[in-house]
Amino acid sequence: MIEKHGALDHIRIVLSHTSHPGNIGAAARAMKTMGLGRLYLINPKHFPHKDADAMACGAQDILTGATVCATLDEALNGAVLAAGVTARRRDLSHKMYSARDSASWLLEQTVNGDIALVFGTEMSGLTNAELDKCQRLVTIPSNPECSSLNLAAAVQVMAYELFTASAPAQHKTKEGEPAALEEVENFYRHLEQTLIRIGFLDPQHPKRLMSRLRRLYARAAPEKEEVSILRGILTETNKKIVD
Amino acid sequence: MIEKHGALDHIRIVLSHTSHPGNIGAAARAMKTMGLGRLYLINPKHFPHKDADAMACGAQDILTGATVCATLDEALNGAVLAAGVTARRRDLSHKMYSARDSASWLLEQTVNGDIALVFGTEMSGLTNAELDKCQRLVTIPSNPECSSLNLAAAVQVMAYELFTASAPAQHKTKEGEPAALEEVENFYRHLEQTLIRIGFLDPQHPKRLMSRLRRLYARAAPEKEEVSILRGILTETNKKIVD
Repeated sequence: MIEKHGALDHIRIVLSHTSHPGNIGAAARAMKTMGLGRLYLINPKHFPHKDADAMACGAQDILTGATVCATLDEALNGAVLAAGVTARRRDLSHKMYSARDSASWLLEQTVNGDIALVFGTEMSGLTNAELDKCQRLVTIPSNPECSSLNLAAAVQVMAYELFTASAPAQHKTKEGEPAALEEVENFYRHLEQTLIRIGFLDPQHPKRLMSRLRRLYARAAPEKEEVSILRGILTETNKKIVD
Repeated sequence: MIEKHGALDHIRIVLSHTSHPGNIGAAARAMKTMGLGRLYLINPKHFPHKDADAMACGAQDILTGATVCATLDEALNGAVLAAGVTARRRDLSHKMYSARDSASWLLEQTVNGDIALVFGTEMSGLTNAELDKCQRLVTIPSNPECSSLNLAAAVQVMAYELFTASAPAQHKTKEGEPAALEEVENFYRHLEQTLIRIGFLDPQHPKRLMSRLRRLYARAAPEKEEVSILRGILTETNKKIVD
């Protein structure tokens, strides 16, 4: 199970001057899937808007609770750190950190208060004036020939990295109970007898056949119930064979 | 600088029965930003479509080069491995691997040929029949209360994980040559017919028997020669059966 993500509650996603309201909705959905909830919008071109609602899917609450601001200063008010997300390398820029490398560090900073992840416009990203207000630059590694992620896609990747860094416990499916070794050995014996009976295995010249089959089934690491099914097949086969 | 990503050229992104063409375009853009280029579309509701073009941005070439298929089998033709991307936990499911844990492994498999990452519909994801054809299930860790990523967002995260994992070029020794997917499918058909013939499988009430067996063999990821052995056993069995 997933741990409670206290640190994620201290992260603000700040979208500056977004042109397309659909991107705002899609960003809200991306946030929600990764346990983030605090959206700040600096002068969005259209908001609220039906396209935002349509793309938000189950994240309407994030749109409803979004804070609309006039300036970046306002969006950063009370925060302890601003990280700008940018694809472009700039002259005179800060060192750039990758999304992955910065995720844990950003989460750690939340012990001091809110941190803000700032995303620029769809067309041109963050302005130099906005970058000047960021203490750190974060970049999502990408194809150098086409590095411009869609705004909501960039929010999704950053949110994913933060969520992953905050969740020590990874998902694991409950698997079936593994078969005991003697059960598997009994299956191999049953299989071998059957192969001899149908004439596929010559006991005088067995070659490596059983070894090959053992190797195949060993890779599958059969469960108890699966061994039962395989033995059931062998039992029924033996009933139908004429020697 | 980024290394040349030969492995990424062997990855197919397969979108099954996509409803919204905008998602196809956004998925193409997501792929392009992460160095992927091979898009397969199974029965898209609308394609080509202006919304796909609008969302593709600089990835129009991926849309133009996309392969439109009628069935999943067609999209997997010639591939050596299919991995289904799913948020839902299923009964009787394969083990689920996280996006991160599976990325390196998937890249390694490309030494054997193409691998396919299969994404289901926006509304309901992959069907059970589609999942049965996947040898591996991959999930993007997410908020358990809202785990449904937008389709293109899911493509973006998976593509990002593959791109990140591919940066240091992976090299792995080749083991036995893996069976092509259609060879494995032919084995399943042969097995099913045989099980019906010996009376172990009731075609009127097949229950989940074939799914269970598929799951077992999928974990083993059989090699070409192993599939030959298994089919040889079935052929000999059929010769010795009295109906």
